[in-house]
Amino acid sequence: TFPFRRFQIQPVWRADRPQKGRYREFYQCDADIIGSDSLLNEVDLIKIIDDVFTELFQGKLKYTISINNRKILQGIVESVGETDKFEQIVVAIDKFDKISYEGVSNELINCDIPKLSVEQILDVVFSVDWRREISKEIKEADAHGCLQQLANLPESIGNTINGRTGIEELEFVFEKLKELGIKTANIKFDATLARGLGYYTGTIIEVKVDNFPSICGGGRYDDLTGKFGLKDVSGVGISFGADRIYDVLLDNKLYPEFKGDSTQVLFTNQSAADEEKFLPMLFELRDKGINAELYTEQAKWQKQLIFAEKKRIKFIVSTNENGDLFVKEMDGTEKKPFSSIDELITIIRK
Amino acid sequence: TFPFRRFQIQPVWRADRPQKGRYREFYQCDADIIGSDSLLNEVDLIKIIDDVFTELFQGKLKYTISINNRKILQGIVESVGETDKFEQIVVAIDKFDKISYEGVSNELINCDIPKLSVEQILDVVFSVDWRREISKEIKEADAHGCLQQLANLPESIGNTINGRTGIEELEFVFEKLKELGIKTANIKFDATLARGLGYYTGTIIEVKVDNFPSICGGGRYDDLTGKFGLKDVSGVGISFGADRIYDVLLDNKLYPEFKGDSTQVLFTNQSAADEEKFLPMLFELRDKGINAELYTEQAKWQKQLIFAEKKRIKFIVSTNENGDLFVKEMDGTEKKPFSSIDELITIIRK
Repeated sequence: TFPFRRFQIQPVWRADRPQKGRYREFYQCDADIIGSDSLLNEVDLIKIIDDVFTELFQGKLKYTISINNRKILQGIVESVGETDKFEQIVVAIDKFDKISYEGVSNELINCDIPKLSVEQILDVVFSVDWRREISKEIKEADAHGCLQQLANLPESIGNTINGRTGIEELEFVFEKLKELGIKTANIKFDATLARGLGYYTGTIIEVKVDNFPSICGGGRYDDLTGKFGLKDVSGVGISFGADRIYDVLLDNKLYPEFKGDSTQVLFTNQSAADEEKFLPMLFELRDKGINAELYTEQAKWQKQLIFAEKKRIKFIVSTNENGDLFVKEMDGTEKKPFSSIDELITIIRK
Repeated sequence: TFPFRRFQIQPVWRADRPQKGRYREFYQCDADIIGSDSLLNEVDLIKIIDDVFTELFQGKLKYTISINNRKILQGIVESVGETDKFEQIVVAIDKFDKISYEGVSNELINCDIPKLSVEQILDVVFSVDWRREISKEIKEADAHGCLQQLANLPESIGNTINGRTGIEELEFVFEKLKELGIKTANIKFDATLARGLGYYTGTIIEVKVDNFPSICGGGRYDDLTGKFGLKDVSGVGISFGADRIYDVLLDNKLYPEFKGDSTQVLFTNQSAADEEKFLPMLFELRDKGINAELYTEQAKWQKQLIFAEKKRIKFIVSTNENGDLFVKEMDGTEKKPFSSIDELITIIRK
């Protein structure tokens, strides 16, 4: 049934050389929509990214969704008449973050691109560069600001067919995002974003927090399925890098404290009689969906209490000197007697 | 906090040559208890196996939990005075399933074990062989029957220290299982079960269904952690082979029919006005935990209906000629008007 929406978490492998934050095997959470050209899918995916990180980061960590369109990159290259050097130019622009204006400029000149064209290219890249503004006023990094930046792109780009289409596509996306609103993400139009020279053909997306490699990325890929025999089917998708997100959460202390809800009830064990009595109850509780365990050694009461405390178990079930059953909340002092498993469950669930 | 109970699902790698059902990379679901010598853990794990397969197989597939104790194997070997050939003997016995009496006998004779000893060994193995009885009366394959088989083991084994300990340990386990009851598993004492010559030291467990390699296995391993610097800590654990269980379920048609509960609500799309109206509602519904999607192309009504039907979406939301909103259950005919998102949610959740 097309369009086909796919959500999947699985391990994937990287062929590149592994480095810090670039693991050989890692987990990816993918969301893809196959068989639809509609730009509403881009809007959908960006909203999903915003939802996911709003929840994961709890509003405590700044992050930016950078958005570009490969057709705008094509427009830039076409506008200076260097179409045959598209790949080299994009590779250079993509390094803007690392080697800045000077570095990109040198790299382009080394590609035998005339100095004038290099300046034109860098003018465009600079004209939409958000870095300075963002540091001044983070609020600007929203869909509204992106629309302004798009409108300010040099006419030369809009005059190419690819450039014009790329601008119109992004305008649609930013317009919708402006109307719908974004929860916590900074939305940024980044004309230097290239996402490698892969299979992307339209919108490209990348999510970053400071000091980490990108934690989510994706874009539109026309006819990628053509490689596998299914022609003329467009797709758009994003991938969350689960391991990196894990690293970011750990690094920023965003994991909630361990709640210790693994075991709810501990049956204590002070004699063979206790084992005899508690073993069937243990499995009955589990059958009712209550996580329980029996202390496996016949041990001193105090040792078992410490164990329950360390594991933050909420209830302990024991027998008193007369062999009567009782349950005690670890936080409280009251020992509630009970005589049937149903009574015990009622007390626990209350 | 010891004893430490560990439950984990993860991909693992096999160093052996891959074969049918023996994948290079596969998923394992582990349950281990570290730091407790109590045989109650064995009981616990066997009950967990019974719970898991009772649920997965829905009572529609026979399966057997075979149980042995490595100390009984030691006892068998000691009782014929061939302790130094323990590993070879166990390897041969382990092949009983594949090469039967004749094959094991030949293999043992080739190991330079006297013919009399070979016969003694095979007598023991045969004396507790369940294969014939099981085919006659499956009901016998329970903890009660296992206890009888244990009692009938030749005295010579019980007279060795290892043999005696192994028998007593299994008696405890089978006694408890008899008292607690088993839901759907056949429980079988299998003196030929060796589980390779790995790190197991006590109870060993293996789960099989017909025509498949084992789908779960495990046992007790004393001091395995010693290899990694933590001395004198006992452990016991089981591993479910997720991929094989998947194969078994598929092969036996035990997967439930697709319920199509991925998308609950489809917003139809017949005009830009629809997109404008439905896009914010789409994200509001999702924020309330209701899975929804918007048909991304402005398409004919009939095409969208077919899409909703194929995806088994329960509700469609549309506008009529006057632009009024309504929701329709795909199963029914009634078009219910609504004017706010809260009204829509009330209708859907009813």
